[in-house]
Amino acid sequence: MRTKEEWIERLKEMKKNVYIGGEKVGHVDERLLPGINVVSVTFDMAHNPEFEDVCTAKSHITGEKINRFCHIHQSKEDLLKKQEMTRLLCQRCGGCIQRCMGIDSMNALSVVTKLLDMRYDTNYYERFINFLKYFQENDLVGNCAQTDVKGDRIKRPHEQKDPDLYLRVVEKRDDGIVVRGAKAHNTIAPYADEIIAIPTRTLTKEEGDWAVAFAIPADTEGVKLVVRPAYVHKRIKLDAPVAHFGDAESFTIFDDVFVPWERVFMCGEWEYGRALALLFALFHRHSYTGCKPAVTDVMGGAAALVAECNNIEKTSHVRDKLSKYIGLSELVYAAGIASAHYAVKSPSGTYIPDPVYTNAGRRLAGENIYHEYEILADLAGGLACTLPLEADFYNEETG
Amino acid sequence: MRTKEEWIERLKEMKKNVYIGGEKVGHVDERLLPGINVVSVTFDMAHNPEFEDVCTAKSHITGEKINRFCHIHQSKEDLLKKQEMTRLLCQRCGGCIQRCMGIDSMNALSVVTKLLDMRYDTNYYERFINFLKYFQENDLVGNCAQTDVKGDRIKRPHEQKDPDLYLRVVEKRDDGIVVRGAKAHNTIAPYADEIIAIPTRTLTKEEGDWAVAFAIPADTEGVKLVVRPAYVHKRIKLDAPVAHFGDAESFTIFDDVFVPWERVFMCGEWEYGRALALLFALFHRHSYTGCKPAVTDVMGGAAALVAECNNIEKTSHVRDKLSKYIGLSELVYAAGIASAHYAVKSPSGTYIPDPVYTNAGRRLAGENIYHEYEILADLAGGLACTLPLEADFYNEETG
Amino acid sequence: MRTKEEWIERLKEMKKNVYIGGEKVGHVDERLLPGINVVSVTFDMAHNPEFEDVCTAKSHITGEKINRFCHIHQSKEDLLKKQEMTRLLCQRCGGCIQRCMGIDSMNALSVVTKLLDMRYDTNYYERFINFLKYFQENDLVGNCAQTDVKGDRIKRPHEQKDPDLYLRVVEKRDDGIVVRGAKAHNTIAPYADEIIAIPTRTLTKEEGDWAVAFAIPADTEGVKLVVRPAYVHKRIKLDAPVAHFGDAESFTIFDDVFVPWERVFMCGEWEYGRALALLFALFHRHSYTGCKPAVTDVMGGAAALVAECNNIEKTSHVRDKLSKYIGLSELVYAAGIASAHYAVKSPSGTYIPDPVYTNAGRRLAGENIYHEYEILADLAGGLACTLPLEADFYNEETG
Amino acid sequence: MRTKEEWIERLKEMKKNVYIGGEKVGHVDERLLPGINVVSVTFDMAHNPEFEDVCTAKSHITGEKINRFCHIHQSKEDLLKKQEMTRLLCQRCGGCIQRCMGIDSMNALSVVTKLLDMRYDTNYYERFINFLKYFQENDLVGNCAQTDVKGDRIKRPHEQKDPDLYLRVVEKRDDGIVVRGAKAHNTIAPYADEIIAIPTRTLTKEEGDWAVAFAIPADTEGVKLVVRPAYVHKRIKLDAPVAHFGDAESFTIFDDVFVPWERVFMCGEWEYGRALALLFALFHRHSYTGCKPAVTDVMGGAAALVAECNNIEKTSHVRDKLSKYIGLSELVYAAGIASAHYAVKSPSGTYIPDPVYTNAGRRLAGENIYHEYEILADLAGGLACTLPLEADFYNEETG
Ligand SMILES: Cc1cc2nc3c(=O)[nH]c(=O)nc-3n(C[C@H](O)[C@H](O)[C@H](O)COP(=O)(O)OP(=O)(O)OC[C@H]3O[C@@H](n4cnc5c(N)ncnc54)[C@H](O)[C@@H]3O)c2cc1C
Ligand SMILES: Cc1cc2nc3c(=O)[nH]c(=O)nc-3n(C[C@H](O)[C@H](O)[C@H](O)COP(=O)(O)OP(=O)(O)OC[C@H]3O[C@@H](n4cnc5c(N)ncnc54)[C@H](O)[C@@H]3O)c2cc1C
Ligand SMILES: Cc1cc2nc3c(=O)[nH]c(=O)nc-3n(C[C@H](O)[C@H](O)[C@H](O)COP(=O)(O)OP(=O)(O)OC[C@H]3O[C@@H](n4cnc5c(N)ncnc54)[C@H](O)[C@@H]3O)c2cc1C
Ligand SMILES: Cc1cc2nc3c(=O)[nH]c(=O)nc-3n(C[C@H](O)[C@H](O)[C@H](O)COP(=O)(O)OP(=O)(O)OC[C@H]3O[C@@H](n4cnc5c(N)ncnc54)[C@H](O)[C@@H]3O)c2cc1C
Repeated sequence: MRTKEEWIERLKEMKKNVYIGGEKVGHVDERLLPGINVVSVTFDMAHNPEFEDVCTAKSHITGEKINRFCHIHQSKEDLLKKQEMTRLLCQRCGGCIQRCMGIDSMNALSVVTKLLDMRYDTNYYERFINFLKYFQENDLVGNCAQTDVKGDRIKRPHEQKDPDLYLRVVEKRDDGIVVRGAKAHNTIAPYADEIIAIPTRTLTKEEGDWAVAFAIPADTEGVKLVVRPAYVHKRIKLDAPVAHFGDAESFTIFDDVFVPWERVFMCGEWEYGRALALLFALFHRHSYTGCKPAVTDVMGGAAALVAECNNIEKTSHVRDKLSKYIGLSELVYAAGIASAHYAVKSPSGTYIPDPVYTNAGRRLAGENIYHEYEILADLAGGLACTLPLEADFYNEETG
Repeated sequence: MRTKEEWIERLKEMKKNVYIGGEKVGHVDERLLPGINVVSVTFDMAHNPEFEDVCTAKSHITGEKINRFCHIHQSKEDLLKKQEMTRLLCQRCGGCIQRCMGIDSMNALSVVTKLLDMRYDTNYYERFINFLKYFQENDLVGNCAQTDVKGDRIKRPHEQKDPDLYLRVVEKRDDGIVVRGAKAHNTIAPYADEIIAIPTRTLTKEEGDWAVAFAIPADTEGVKLVVRPAYVHKRIKLDAPVAHFGDAESFTIFDDVFVPWERVFMCGEWEYGRALALLFALFHRHSYTGCKPAVTDVMGGAAALVAECNNIEKTSHVRDKLSKYIGLSELVYAAGIASAHYAVKSPSGTYIPDPVYTNAGRRLAGENIYHEYEILADLAGGLACTLPLEADFYNEETG
Repeated sequence: MRTKEEWIERLKEMKKNVYIGGEKVGHVDERLLPGINVVSVTFDMAHNPEFEDVCTAKSHITGEKINRFCHIHQSKEDLLKKQEMTRLLCQRCGGCIQRCMGIDSMNALSVVTKLLDMRYDTNYYERFINFLKYFQENDLVGNCAQTDVKGDRIKRPHEQKDPDLYLRVVEKRDDGIVVRGAKAHNTIAPYADEIIAIPTRTLTKEEGDWAVAFAIPADTEGVKLVVRPAYVHKRIKLDAPVAHFGDAESFTIFDDVFVPWERVFMCGEWEYGRALALLFALFHRHSYTGCKPAVTDVMGGAAALVAECNNIEKTSHVRDKLSKYIGLSELVYAAGIASAHYAVKSPSGTYIPDPVYTNAGRRLAGENIYHEYEILADLAGGLACTLPLEADFYNEETG
Repeated sequence: MRTKEEWIERLKEMKKNVYIGGEKVGHVDERLLPGINVVSVTFDMAHNPEFEDVCTAKSHITGEKINRFCHIHQSKEDLLKKQEMTRLLCQRCGGCIQRCMGIDSMNALSVVTKLLDMRYDTNYYERFINFLKYFQENDLVGNCAQTDVKGDRIKRPHEQKDPDLYLRVVEKRDDGIVVRGAKAHNTIAPYADEIIAIPTRTLTKEEGDWAVAFAIPADTEGVKLVVRPAYVHKRIKLDAPVAHFGDAESFTIFDDVFVPWERVFMCGEWEYGRALALLFALFHRHSYTGCKPAVTDVMGGAAALVAECNNIEKTSHVRDKLSKYIGLSELVYAAGIASAHYAVKSPSGTYIPDPVYTNAGRRLAGENIYHEYEILADLAGGLACTLPLEADFYNEETG
């Protein structure tokens, strides 16, 4: 397992292909630090003996101890541990831990490559296992590039005016394929080792070119990461952990990018576009049942804190509001537990969480997030948005 | 009636007592421009013949044409016009027009100073009318400083550990009074001509010192405006009206400030603290029935626009969601109409909107604002928060 | 204007064509009394000098004083009075006053018959005015039969397997037309004088036969009123006003019913089906802005009462819940006021309430009714559904 | 294990002490049949080999196979099975299975009697185990009488004007105690074998007399069951399973009832009133995580059926609404799974479900039940409340 220092070292060696505010920069640009700080936590915790059980796993291919963010679920227990780890780490960062995307898409590929082979006599699963071994041995950070640009939402990929609005194969060669298009909102991409691309939706028989899945290093020729960094208030004296964390999403352009065959995990099998898209979503939503409770926990904690500052924490409306956080957080978490409880084993051995429970939990989280903001704003009163800037507190005349 | 240029000229002449990020600056600091741009609209529209009817009024004391933001409501029609003006101007600025605070507190004072005189044989109303004449003739911009720092919410003002957590009179002199404390979240204060201070809540007989209302120039000796300016993304080429607008709230410190008697409108009559606090709130909530619909209109417009970009504006869930904006906006506006319809005339002649309708409208607005954000975010999809920065669109490699 | 006794006398003389629980009965059957008691209130209040102003009007065709339930709105004031009357009477009955359906459809016909004549050179408006004169002079109670059986909701009327699922013209004769089909959920029909039938939705050019509007006496040959009466607990000693009130809906069968031309107000003009359907809905929804607040008022009153019994009326959650009733009730009412405020005059002189406000109010009412039940059940505790029967309170061993 | 016939036989032999509508009747009165039919299902299913695993258990005291409704949870698995059984049986009856109350209070007693003995050196647990043996051997149906009449909700039991508003001990004798008061809303009581009474809330040191728990046969001298039976539409030809099911609640009067010491499980230990009250609530809320999903399932099924009748089941708003049922049902069920997953073992060996998950699930169910009614009403359209009576469908003229 790598240390965060080893990971950052590797990032520094990568080619410059990150674009921020019109500039081309490297993968450890200052504006990416909030995100890098978050992902660092996933390395630190795996080396922390106290959290070893939850943050590491035993590779089912090599038997080695690996970071759980590189692991393919071999049991219901694995799903429960993943959920627990996600909540734990997100509570520490006060938000998205980011590294789940990659491993969630790897889990989906572990199922679908097997299904493809069973149906078409291909050798995707072998390729995938080879890549997985490399991924686990090097303790890699993966991004999942799923969401296409889409354009007109009513039209299908092949009906769009511009065929590149969904990422597609433009050439098949002996040694690999060439892909063109872009994926949007890609969390973690600027500081990931690998980009793992998969389809975003159900595909039809006209859409074989869009049925493509692969993994490539994030600084591959032709890949451009146009990034919107997190906006973080710089602190002067009053430091706060949350002020060091943040994320960054990339609009990832594939400008005729070459992908060698050993890194291609689907190419043309449009019938399985839907399965791969939905399976990633399923694994990812199971991750949500870990991270959303953490976000709610943090927000509930903040709400309890402001309530205490205002000395209203014992009044009945405040207790009622604070209990909402607990209820929401735990119900979403319960949905994840139930979906692990009813998980099924796929032909490749990967455990798949129950979709009904997973989606019910994810939906509950989604439907209530604005309500959670609302409670926090209510309990904080006007201060939350009119607080003077930090420097004024240290100014002699006003502080 | 002043032009915006005349107003800004006057702001420039004011003493420096604005603090931003630790610096002491003047009243036309660059970071205040978004707010100044908003208030400028209230001057421009009053001079625009097309909007004269709604944006100006006839003074009931001088008979002169004045900016409606300096007018005391003489009829139900006046309340309806104020509401209409507020919606119109807020639609233009895409948010709070800010100048209503001042005139709403003036309306409250026009009622309460009369009641005080009727009960205690004082001469507050005469003082108020003199000040009003000056206010109207000079077309002044007023801030209302109502909300105190409060501290422990369970304790009353006189029970707080620090008696200055609520603004109070520390000395009564022949020529006036000296006040100490601070008011929080004061919108418009850094670019207002006058600060109008009133109590924030019901007071008890131990709290005569906290029963104080007055108006003073914003750069009076001892007044310090600690300001959090609006955060506005600077645009490079793609200009947008909304990018020029914003607001700024001040944490207003009264460091033993002297107020001459002719500017004092309540001093010690704690029995009327509640009336004044609630009446300002009532007039201000009636303003809300104009501005909240405008905000909803703007958000609904934005939602319709993104829906069009995504070409989903005709699907049933989107129509349903967009119709929510219209429904909310118009119900809040209807509450304002009904509260004008049932307005009553106070002893001083000022028309007071019906509190039940006003509050019902304000509450509906308050309860739904997060839901409005939610719809907008839903229709926009992920782009709303991961859009690359403007410069990247103009960069040759990524644009 | 009739007295309720005169009205009931007339009901008694009508032919038996009401069916309840398999029996054919008359129009004053015991099981219809709760409904008859409700409509009686509309007669009593019109004769009560205290309520004369709100419950009567001056006919714009004869100049006579008439029951407001027979009046065509001649001004915004008329709309406001109608709304006020509706709230007042519904508060008295604790529910739907029922008589508005008829006059709401008459108002819609007053607009549309004029439009038809302007477009097609027909004489519907004259027929309508003649019928209106008769309606006003005899102070009639009208039912509006709009809602068709519909069948498959995805198919249009002419696409249904059974063409009679929407009421239609099956024969045109010299002296009149013959109609066949059924209308569902017709409130007030078993004790109404007249049945006023109108289309339920937009029609297409294949649907001229379904474009039919007319008025006929409720006991006309071929009309069958299949009725579900209100379920009312019989009281023994503890009487309660609400125990005498209730409504009854009819499934109204038109078994080849003949309608003379002077009673036909639309026949074939499918282009105006939509206008007539929507206009009735609009006038009716404006009525809702009067009756729904009344229902909320009554429910809020009941909630306040049980809260008092439980001695919890002063706790903060209860005050908050009770204030929800007031807020909802008044916002819906405000929507009606605003829609009257922005009403427009149609070519026939009838004032049409503003559709946006009307619908916004109606929607708010509809979206919250279950929430109102919920609050009431909450405050009442378990008793609301487990209260022993009345007789047990008078039993010596248990009372 | 008894058959339902044996159970009913025993009911017939009980003394008459049920009061309905002023009459004193026996325990198998016709108006109680809907409830008896429900409870019969709990006997039938236990004898059905297909459901043996879920509906029976092995007694931890005798090792015999018993009805799971007589079992004390010995493992997490037991809690999961109980939840599963509850959902299964409630789906069959379309509502509350009623028999859980008794066993939920037994589970609470199994924990608290042990704790009492550990603290006070009493022998409650031995008494309890003896009673449990009898309960299991005779396959008894228990009612839990917890909820007191309460009176003024702001006052404590000992502060009420009438000390009998909460059930209490009025005499302690050598052979047992005499209790006086009443319990309200007691489901299943009129057709239960035993009444198990426990405190309803936290008690204070003045309230030793109210700290009482015991079990007595439902026809014990001095016990009067004042019953409100379920209201069920009698069917003529169109039979429906749901028409045979229903429940009945009793207002249970204890008119100086003697309870022998071997049936007394708490007497004076007010410090444990809270524990017993909350533990019953906890076990019972865990049952809710089984029954509420069943109710939602049934309602969702009904909603899907009416949607199909209206041929709208494929439109997007309907799919969205139907999916709400699934989401709610499964989230509540998931809460139960999670609370079993985190269950802890008490000193007596009984497994106690996790309170946070249990309560979060129960709350979600409670907060949404009105929303579930609303959806059903929406999808059904007007028919749900205006459908003519059954006989009219068989009438020749109207059918
Ligand atoms: C912070 C953040 C991080 C993310 N990280 C990643 C990541 O790492 N990798 C990745 O692949 N993606 C990522 N995403 C993308 C995310 O998965 C998508 O935003 C999400 O799937 C929605 O897609 P969209 O933005 O294209 O919106 P859309 O799905 O297009 O939705 C926009 C609106 O259009 C409506 N709509 C769409 N289609 C139709 C239709 N046919 N009919 C009617 N209405 C329609 C929707 O209901 C919605 O109201 C991230 C998003 C965010 C916000
Ligand atoms: C953008 C903005 C602009 C503003 N502009 C102005 C302005 O121009 N002039 C001005 O005077 N003010 C202004 N305000 C202030 C505004 O009026 C206050 O924020 C508002 O009145 C709430 O007061 P507060 O912030 O002190 O919060 P509080 O009222 O203290 O509320 C915080 C929380 O404490 C709870 N709480 C408070 N007291 C109790 C109690 N006794 N028991 C139980 N719970 C309690 C509340 O329910 C809430 O949950 C502005 C505010 C904002 C956000
Ligand atoms: C107490 C009561 C009194 C009434 N009194 C009268 C009266 O006096 N006179 C009168 O004429 N009517 C009366 N009505 C009828 C009332 O106007 C109708 O119930 C209402 O218009 C709904 O019509 P519906 O019942 O046919 O339901 P529908 O409109 O058919 O709705 C049922 C469900 O189907 C859905 N649906 C329908 N069409 C579609 C579609 N094309 N695509 C997708 N979904 C669809 C709806 O959204 C809804 O969920 C009364 C109703 C009630 C409940
Ligand atoms: C169908 C049904 C079956 C039932 N079956 C059983 C059964 O088998 N056995 C049994 O023991 N019970 C049973 N119950 C009773 C049930 O447990 C109670 O109804 C429930 O606990 C609420 O108690 P309550 O009815 O006394 O209402 P309360 O708890 O008194 O609540 C009424 C209202 O008062 C408010 N309130 C109460 N106290 C305060 C306070 N101090 N301050 C502020 N507000 C307050 C509440 O918030 C609520 O709004 C049943 C109930 C129902 C509806």
